[in-house]
Amino acid sequence: MTGSAALFTDRYELTMVDAALLDGTAHRESLFEAFARRLPDGRRYGIVAGTGRLLELIERFRFDDAELEFLREQRVVRDETLDWLADYRFRGDVWGYREGEAYFPGSPLVTIQAPFADAVMLETLVLSVLNYDSSVASAAARMVSVALGRPIAEMGSRRTNEASAVAAARAAYIAGFDATSNLEAGRTWGIPTMGTAAHAFTLLHDSEEAAFRAQVEAMGPGTTLLIDTYDIATGVETAVRVAGTGLGAVRIDSGDLPTVVAAVREQLDELGAVNTRITVTSDLDEFTLAALSGAPVDAYGVGTSVVTGSGFPAAGMVYKLVARRGDDGEWVSVAKASTKKLSVGGRKNAARRIDSTRTAREELVFVGDGPDGEAEFAADDELRPLMVRLMHEGRADAAFTGHAGVEAARAHRAEVMQELPIEAFRLGRGEPVIPTTYR
Amino acid sequence: MTGSAALFTDRYELTMVDAALLDGTAHRESLFEAFARRLPDGRRYGIVAGTGRLLELIERFRFDDAELEFLREQRVVRDETLDWLADYRFRGDVWGYREGEAYFPGSPLVTIQAPFADAVMLETLVLSVLNYDSSVASAAARMVSVALGRPIAEMGSRRTNEASAVAAARAAYIAGFDATSNLEAGRTWGIPTMGTAAHAFTLLHDSEEAAFRAQVEAMGPGTTLLIDTYDIATGVETAVRVAGTGLGAVRIDSGDLPTVVAAVREQLDELGAVNTRITVTSDLDEFTLAALSGAPVDAYGVGTSVVTGSGFPAAGMVYKLVARRGDDGEWVSVAKASTKKLSVGGRKNAARRIDSTRTAREELVFVGDGPDGEAEFAADDELRPLMVRLMHEGRADAAFTGHAGVEAARAHRAEVMQELPIEAFRLGRGEPVIPTTYR
Repeated sequence: MTGSAALFTDRYELTMVDAALLDGTAHRESLFEAFARRLPDGRRYGIVAGTGRLLELIERFRFDDAELEFLREQRVVRDETLDWLADYRFRGDVWGYREGEAYFPGSPLVTIQAPFADAVMLETLVLSVLNYDSSVASAAARMVSVALGRPIAEMGSRRTNEASAVAAARAAYIAGFDATSNLEAGRTWGIPTMGTAAHAFTLLHDSEEAAFRAQVEAMGPGTTLLIDTYDIATGVETAVRVAGTGLGAVRIDSGDLPTVVAAVREQLDELGAVNTRITVTSDLDEFTLAALSGAPVDAYGVGTSVVTGSGFPAAGMVYKLVARRGDDGEWVSVAKASTKKLSVGGRKNAARRIDSTRTAREELVFVGDGPDGEAEFAADDELRPLMVRLMHEGRADAAFTGHAGVEAARAHRAEVMQELPIEAFRLGRGEPVIPTTYR
Repeated sequence: MTGSAALFTDRYELTMVDAALLDGTAHRESLFEAFARRLPDGRRYGIVAGTGRLLELIERFRFDDAELEFLREQRVVRDETLDWLADYRFRGDVWGYREGEAYFPGSPLVTIQAPFADAVMLETLVLSVLNYDSSVASAAARMVSVALGRPIAEMGSRRTNEASAVAAARAAYIAGFDATSNLEAGRTWGIPTMGTAAHAFTLLHDSEEAAFRAQVEAMGPGTTLLIDTYDIATGVETAVRVAGTGLGAVRIDSGDLPTVVAAVREQLDELGAVNTRITVTSDLDEFTLAALSGAPVDAYGVGTSVVTGSGFPAAGMVYKLVARRGDDGEWVSVAKASTKKLSVGGRKNAARRIDSTRTAREELVFVGDGPDGEAEFAADDELRPLMVRLMHEGRADAAFTGHAGVEAARAHRAEVMQELPIEAFRLGRGEPVIPTTYR
């Protein structure tokens, strides 16, 4: 695996650069835009995630000697182009939605302005990051809204590629999850990590009691004991006997959850463990979480469904050239014309119309205006500007990267949720909760 | 991101190690097994992928100073356990199915024997790798079988996490795809890479003709020209005019494909470009590929559907403790008992029953036998042994890793396909094409 991000790239990005360097068009100033043509089927809104991670990857996008040697051996591009690649680093500007922002069809999520060759090279990376991370965040946000304030931990690392798992933990946290099982996500992004024991730990021991004693000895009575390896009622009894009524929590990973959870709560209370919490972690998704809203659950763990975008593992974003300068220096709006895959050419700006009840009503995309047209919205308090400058001349704004960027995105998402119409939070299928209007 | 794989791990693996070191059970020799309880809904078979990649990651699974420091700061485990982690490297044995093998519910795909602490630590990594890679390979194999020998390129990097994309390219190639757009997959795994230009390249230029001239100038007339940015018929005419009748290929990325492809073929032939191939790349999956079987297509490019497992982005594999030694040195079969999630405890071996027409009829899982019981099958030519030793005392068998491992897996898959019953290749939903029998 490469240390840089430069070969996380489709070959055709480099062959386009090669041909464009040869005929001189490589240097034409260009504007690329990442957006989603539609939301996943039936979803009411999406949540942008990956932006901060992307900015860091763009800053590290360089071709090292081994990578260049591979391109040379494979004759991917001409020697002159290899020299150009060796010097490459991104020096352009990036505008876009804040990470954690809600988005709708056509929202201009990331806009990159740079010479064609510099900007086209980032296509694969931009889309890999935004498509996966936003898919996870969009699913996670729905789970958070039906959890009604109960904390949710992301524990799906084992159900997605090992590196995806780190990104998934980050995206879920931005969308309002409270913790992750993934240690690398803790280290890289500062996300709280959690987890105590699996069934294997109980099976390793000669009895459930021996396993519980070992765990309490190592982690104290405040730990979470997994009580469904054998009989659940016996597990609860043993757990409280071993840890005392100060037992932190029990975890249930199987069974008909509403019934089981109620029975466990009753048994815990009878045993005097009235403050012992119940965590549930059995193949949950937004629908099963909703079904548990009336059960005495204290916390959830969600795995497969969140790291795979709950049915939509890619957010469907595309990265399109929307404008470029001609040899006369004038900007020309461009868009593919032959198909039903509608693209709107031209530089864009965007704002969300907020009504007097502080509720979002419309996603406005201004075509032909640039993101630095932000000032014009300021006078009108009903239009919330959506685009911010994420990167200037190749340097990311530190507010959007690292641990600080993750926390800012998480806080921003929480705010944005407040302004979405209540229908946004229905789980049933429907149209995007606000329409997108081009002006 | 860490250089090792050690923090691609759920926190609870380490807390289990911590508690088991404290009570002495950490050293109990254990047998963990990775298997799928079921195939994705309606699928007839699965293809194992990721094994070679996993073996390399296990060899690199060490905790470096920065990782240990993170665990110390976060107080994930006790100081004594940090010392143990600092010395950790996997020294156990791994048996399992060859990469590229077909699998069915209950097939013991990977079996790891080592002291409990050593083996449990690998759980998250084993499952991340097998679940994602096998999901992609299982989807890809279906696409290959309906492509009827026409080459398929994987070009879905942009629709999955940037690191997943490299694994996806590898898994698809093992399943019979011919190339990938992903450059890192070319470098790391030796997979042929492909790709020439996107719509942006045409839009960058003042005309489609100028774009085609630039591309042919850089890549020669044998290149593939993308002819659907504007009007397709005009695109074809321009392409042949610019490149000549020796034009390598045209690519179509939109439209009602069977109709469009037929028209383009007719036009190419009329223009004398009878050897110019047609490549199609528009949101294809196994079903649209099947629908194109009668159209004059020469090659396919598949993106989203293959890298997301065509509806099943995680293969559903689990990693379970199935046996462990007690303090008396005797092996004890173990399995979680409280739920409907059936697990079969005990050491396993597996073979596929092949009938006199060289057709697979049954997946036999021998419970209580170990994989080194392989010899007993040899006398019976109708039972093909399925398990091989992948790693011995922490060292991977080089036949299964690196570029050689990828090629071996690809070749093995091609052979295995020959022995599956013909019903395996129906796209419609059905039961696993052969039953799994426990003995």
